[in-house]
Amino acid sequence: MSYLDRIAECNAHDLARFVPFRIADRHVGWVKRPFAARLAAFAETFYASDEAVELAPTLRSFDERSQALEHILRRLAGEGAVPAWRDELYPVATAFGAPPLMQMERAALPLFGVRAYGVHVNGFVRDGDGVKLWVARRARDKPTYPGMLDNFVAGGQPIGLGLKDNVIKEAEEEAGVPAALARRAVPVGAVSYCMETSDGLKPDVQFAFDLELPPGFEPRNGDGEIEAFHLWPVERVMEVTRETAAFKFNCNLINIDFFVRHGFLGPDEPGYLDIIAGLHR
Amino acid sequence: MSYLDRIAECNAHDLARFVPFRIADRHVGWVKRPFAARLAAFAETFYASDEAVELAPTLRSFDERSQALEHILRRLAGEGAVPAWRDELYPVATAFGAPPLMQMERAALPLFGVRAYGVHVNGFVRDGDGVKLWVARRARDKPTYPGMLDNFVAGGQPIGLGLKDNVIKEAEEEAGVPAALARRAVPVGAVSYCMETSDGLKPDVQFAFDLELPPGFEPRNGDGEIEAFHLWPVERVMEVTRETAAFKFNCNLINIDFFVRHGFLGPDEPGYLDIIAGLHR
Repeated sequence: MSYLDRIAECNAHDLARFVPFRIADRHVGWVKRPFAARLAAFAETFYASDEAVELAPTLRSFDERSQALEHILRRLAGEGAVPAWRDELYPVATAFGAPPLMQMERAALPLFGVRAYGVHVNGFVRDGDGVKLWVARRARDKPTYPGMLDNFVAGGQPIGLGLKDNVIKEAEEEAGVPAALARRAVPVGAVSYCMETSDGLKPDVQFAFDLELPPGFEPRNGDGEIEAFHLWPVERVMEVTRETAAFKFNCNLINIDFFVRHGFLGPDEPGYLDIIAGLHR
Repeated sequence: MSYLDRIAECNAHDLARFVPFRIADRHVGWVKRPFAARLAAFAETFYASDEAVELAPTLRSFDERSQALEHILRRLAGEGAVPAWRDELYPVATAFGAPPLMQMERAALPLFGVRAYGVHVNGFVRDGDGVKLWVARRARDKPTYPGMLDNFVAGGQPIGLGLKDNVIKEAEEEAGVPAALARRAVPVGAVSYCMETSDGLKPDVQFAFDLELPPGFEPRNGDGEIEAFHLWPVERVMEVTRETAAFKFNCNLINIDFFVRHGFLGPDEPGYLDIIAGLHR
């Protein structure tokens, strides 16, 4: 097992199993062929062929598109085809910050291979010359990746909320971080990947933040999504990242990026340059 | 002018003007077509066609290849075809750390489109909540990029020297940094790019290091390669990087990487994700 294994797991996909998803001639995602065939039944909303799935051009506005899709998604969810409905709306756009062409229920994003964005916060404590990282254990009843290890604070990026505001909100809800402390989180880059799931694709981007916490700080979960927090020496986080798949898949990339930026993982590591390239796919 | 302009300058190239350069069936570089035609004259050493330049397979060992090439390069240098001869030998390999197939005079690397590696050190000083960066001005008589701005300490990576040892050596020679201080340089990643030159290609990788310096430290050049050092607020380095081409081309990438990792350039910057991707080509 190695860091490169973690990176490979986040990037395992075969686009031959997908067709492009387009809105107004713009490529915004990827649909798996069986789901494309299912969408073909909604002929007023989707033009689905062996080549592509296109949202009907008669749907001209953000609202028209979003409403038409929500109607279909709720029906598909009733059939069990949209697992883990979240009641969170995400933008669908050609790039981060571009005007969204529509909004979509979070649980449906992978079905349409639409890029999701999120924020991940490395909560760390200096300890002499060393560093300790706060690691979260996801609740056993969470709809996605229950019981897995997670970064200190992390959350998807819904429509209409700034990144830093999202960090402050998630830090408060997930770990009881006062806003004045969470505001000190420093943006330090982003990781990207493209992972195939059983019924879709996650070609996602996670923005990374570093938040140095005072030694006495104790996180406390407020939303029931975290079972426990652990303060681990960075060396232990490195070993668990490298040797196991205990962290939720994309948290490994955030961990590795932290190890690289802080010099814990240096050029003597075999594959160092491949590891760095692998964080930015 | 923008950060993305700096990144684009480092990546301007058209591989249609090149043919692959191979040693023992392994692709190790790119040769511009006119230079490939010149190499065809050395038929015992090079098999040069419209498709590729191959080192003769009769040259079987590291030493045989290196000696045959040096002989030809010295002759070409006599004709002015290898400008700025450095008398520094660099490894030619399929990847960083892989066993080198041969060694080659540094000045010839771009002619063969062989990847060069180097180390760049961000020398910075904390100043309250702000940061200042030491910036170097290259000597006017330096054979490459005379008079341009440079990172605090930077150097190419010759054969047979470790990265950290190179940092310590260059920091001492270029800026008078005592070894005990230079050893504190933290590896923080790498930037890569691919830039076409008038007669070749630079598909290079630079390893980045951060070195926090005490406020009272004054760099002093010892090898005549630096004309002056300036201690600039990071905001000024950002402006000069963004608005001018005053820095040697690849130093801009090291600067931008520093701005991103330390949160001076954050997700509110237009094109933030393209900037991050652009540092890792």
